This record gives sequence, C-alpha cells and structure tokens, in this order.
Amino acid sequence: MKAIVNVGLKQGVLDDQGKATHHALDTLGFKDLVKDVRIGKQIIIELNSSDEAAAKEEVTKMCQKLLANTVIEDYDIEIVG
Amino acid sequence: MKAIVNVGLKQGVLDDQGKATHHALDTLGFKDLVKDVRIGKQIIIELNSSDEAAAKEEVTKMCQKLLANTVIEDYDIEIVG
Repeated sequence: MKAIVNVGLKQGVLDDQGKATHHALDTLGFKDLVKDVRIGKQIIIELNSSDEAAAKEEVTKMCQKLLANTVIEDYDIEIVG
Repeated sequence: MKAIVNVGLKQGVLDDQGKATHHALDTLGFKDLVKDVRIGKQIIIELNSSDEAAAKEEVTKMCQKLLANTVIEDYDIEIVG
C-alpha cells in the first residue's frame, strides 16, 4: 500500500519558486497561456500495512511531525494500492 | 483550467531527499510502517485555456523545456477544471 502526500504552501503565502517558474515560462513563450504557478512537494511513501484507515491516520501523524510545516503549508493524503 | 504536473526521479536514480526523510521517519517511530520514501515536485499551473487537449500539449512542452530534467526525472500531467 502506498500513500501519496501532496504538500503545498497555503493560499496567501508567497511562493518564490512558483513566481520564478512563472517568469521563466513567460520568457519561454507561454506568457498568454499561464496565469499562475504554484510549486509543492509530492511525497510517495511505501507502507507495510493493509489497513487503509490506520495507514491514513499514521501518515497524518507523519505530516504533522515532519513532512509539512503546518504554519505555512497544507497537505493532503491519498492512500492507493 | 488547471494543470497538475507531478515530477519525480526515475526508478534507479538515487533519491537523497527521500532517503533522509525515510531515516527521519524511522527515528520518529514509524520504522515498522515505512518501506520506502520518494520525493518529487508538484507543479500546479493555472491556464488561460478552454481546450484540454491543446493545454496538455502546451504543458508537455513546458515540462520538456523547463519543468523536468528528462534525463533523470519522469513527469505526468493531469488537466482538471
């Protein structure tokens, strides 16, 4: 079983990396197409577990303890496989 | 319309950040649960477009030109909204 954790900056928090990427895309000729760019992390965790609910609970603890900075970041967890 | 681009290291490429996170999770008491950790980027692009197929084609170009290093990284693109 696998957990896919997406961690991104909260709305309103300045996303430097996203802004820089947006600017780079503009200069590469995508100016008219791109309105905004946000960049986050995707963490894929292979788990030794067969209980989806319990796994999700443990991964939530991982996010709160380590994977996300909950002051400035939001996370969502998807359990697959 | 929004493109969600997930960029991750190819299988076989050493993922330092994933290894370090795995080790940290082990020391935090998740040793029995976690088998492997891989870390990638999630890039969310707001697009001025209403044509899903054309948007996907343009975002593929963005990946090849800027967003992914195709020597060591794989990417997948999902168009939503």
